[in-house]
Amino acid sequence: MKIFVLNAGSSSLKYQLIDMENENVIAKGNVEKIGLEGSFIKYKANGKELILDGASNHTDAISRVINLLTDNENGVVESLDEISAVAHRVVQGGWLFQKSELVTDEVIEKIESLFELAPLHNPANVAGIKACQQVMKDIPQVVVFDTSFHQTMPAKAYMYGIKYEDYEEYHIRKYGAHGTSHRFVSSEVAKIMNRPLEELKVITVHVGNGSSITAIDHGKSVDTTMGFTPLEGLVMGTRSGDIDPTVVQYLCKKKNMTVEEVITYLNKKCGIDGVSGVSSDMRAINEAVEQGNERAKLALDMLLYRVTKYVGAYMAAMNGADAIVFTGGIGENQEDLREYVCQQLAFAGVEIDVDRNWNLPRGTVEELSTQNSKVKVYRIPTDEELLMARDCQEIVKSLKK
Amino acid sequence: MKIFVLNAGSSSLKYQLIDMENENVIAKGNVEKIGLEGSFIKYKANGKELILDGASNHTDAISRVINLLTDNENGVVESLDEISAVAHRVVQGGWLFQKSELVTDEVIEKIESLFELAPLHNPANVAGIKACQQVMKDIPQVVVFDTSFHQTMPAKAYMYGIKYEDYEEYHIRKYGAHGTSHRFVSSEVAKIMNRPLEELKVITVHVGNGSSITAIDHGKSVDTTMGFTPLEGLVMGTRSGDIDPTVVQYLCKKKNMTVEEVITYLNKKCGIDGVSGVSSDMRAINEAVEQGNERAKLALDMLLYRVTKYVGAYMAAMNGADAIVFTGGIGENQEDLREYVCQQLAFAGVEIDVDRNWNLPRGTVEELSTQNSKVKVYRIPTDEELLMARDCQEIVKSLKK
Repeated sequence: MKIFVLNAGSSSLKYQLIDMENENVIAKGNVEKIGLEGSFIKYKANGKELILDGASNHTDAISRVINLLTDNENGVVESLDEISAVAHRVVQGGWLFQKSELVTDEVIEKIESLFELAPLHNPANVAGIKACQQVMKDIPQVVVFDTSFHQTMPAKAYMYGIKYEDYEEYHIRKYGAHGTSHRFVSSEVAKIMNRPLEELKVITVHVGNGSSITAIDHGKSVDTTMGFTPLEGLVMGTRSGDIDPTVVQYLCKKKNMTVEEVITYLNKKCGIDGVSGVSSDMRAINEAVEQGNERAKLALDMLLYRVTKYVGAYMAAMNGADAIVFTGGIGENQEDLREYVCQQLAFAGVEIDVDRNWNLPRGTVEELSTQNSKVKVYRIPTDEELLMARDCQEIVKSLKK
Repeated sequence: MKIFVLNAGSSSLKYQLIDMENENVIAKGNVEKIGLEGSFIKYKANGKELILDGASNHTDAISRVINLLTDNENGVVESLDEISAVAHRVVQGGWLFQKSELVTDEVIEKIESLFELAPLHNPANVAGIKACQQVMKDIPQVVVFDTSFHQTMPAKAYMYGIKYEDYEEYHIRKYGAHGTSHRFVSSEVAKIMNRPLEELKVITVHVGNGSSITAIDHGKSVDTTMGFTPLEGLVMGTRSGDIDPTVVQYLCKKKNMTVEEVITYLNKKCGIDGVSGVSSDMRAINEAVEQGNERAKLALDMLLYRVTKYVGAYMAAMNGADAIVFTGGIGENQEDLREYVCQQLAFAGVEIDVDRNWNLPRGTVEELSTQNSKVKVYRIPTDEELLMARDCQEIVKSLKK
């Protein structure tokens, strides 16, 4: 079974074609600047990378990608029939979706009803679904939500200290995000430990351009750092993460901005980028730190410190942990992050092999904890697309029964 | 030496006269509704409580209280000369005050320069100082700040993930509060443990109508849950505590409120009160929980859970703790809070005598931890006025040298 995995944004889309026999990616790429000047398509397959002219809209983009996949010279499948299903990433499933689902008219309507909670992302995700429906006709489509994994959180974790009526009327609560990544690495860690996930307490630390940490108790997300939106929690590439809510008011007043402008500012111009004044890119931050840039050092220290505090918080939330997993672009590659966090958890019996931590190959699954460590520590590369494809495969197989 | 301790609000003030020979409170009371209809003075001394007509302004209020203290029949001192100094509580010392200070014109100007950071409280505090200057003439006055204890926080703890320029220009950072309470109980715990505070890692959990937790590493505050204002952190009587900053925007939109209105709403109408719909008073919440009120139970669960997470976070911040101290009206009297928090920290070697925890007399210093516990756990009643008086005494004594 071959599954087409799609992540559609408002003016871009990322895709992979995965062969589920061996879970290999047989083609991948992205379309950028859809409908804009300079639009282009990147396509990687058969060991080659092509860059081609872009697309005028989402349907055009999907159609061109499908043409590439089935192309005589550069294609990877004979025809569209070889693609069994499409898995779509949807950012916000709100309280309406507890798991991945087959796309139906009703499902699309439900996603549309959540537009207000994710005004930038959900409409783009739906555009991707509709484009595929047009181009790929009867091929089954599945939606995989960033939020649905976190729907198992207990009320004490997802509720804010606001009036209960605001929760009831406006659905203001914690939804979390990055669910596919947290689910993927937690299921991987259970395999590696050779224990059922349902027996484990796992803390998954996903640090990338967006970052979140999840407490997974017996296989269920019981808390996560992102909130009503992805703005809450850790300090991220350009997102502030946690701040005193009064800061929103103070910034409105001092910078003469509307509240909408301040929230956009906190999402796009702050975080590691805003503190350091250097970049949101960790490689640039690390370079600046080496050159003695104090603001870059502060941004790095803040990141390490906040990750540490949340891991400690989640150990308390679950009364300990069997495993801590580092993942995401930064979690997988930032040695000092892993070292600092684990060193600060020595009180809880966490011990890692420091030399080993600093000398990992890229992109491999690695255990960092020593034999004496009470808590296993792993670096596990995440693969959200693969998890989306797995969910999709399961749903499509169940249809055939 | 007798010290007059004053906490002046915009239309109320609380006072104590403390005899520093034995640290006994020899008179105490409050003036309410200053300048408003129904204003009254409460005065407790010599085992009696009097209620008298109120005051038209702060100077009038101070003058009446001083008359009561020196009154032939109900007074506790012969004349004003017996009062050696006044200690004033000031809410916001910003980045300008690292410790308590003798009042001078320059000090008043500095406090006035911070009005924007605490628009409701600092002006009232200054009104109290000026009233005392008028009534008590040359008696030395000292200011004790809620924030100054937290000025030792490292930048990684006090900085927000916003643009560095916003910190530089607008002084937006974490200041914390409740400093006198955290300082008081941390110095008490060192005495009880018979170890220098400078050797200890202590987590002080102050839960009252306002609540905060502080990580105190070798005697210095290194992190605290309240932030730029007291709105951040734990869920409190009527304050929301931590929320996704986007919620501020969403509430503006949905409730058609200005950002100022939303921040007032989050301070005054939310928290335990807003979630439960019952009350901000823990006694009422506990009663409602017993009667099966689910929203009251949720509010209680949220409080317990958030305290637990922050204690875990601060254990990680300091790589463990030697002692955890519960204080404040709720921290001192809410048994299930202490039990839940300590039970969730079993992974870190915390163990308390559960029976003992549920059968404490009111208002006493108690150790709750068992002999096996790796971390000492105490219930210590706070006494912010006494700490203010101690600071004041030290400053006044140094003047005489």
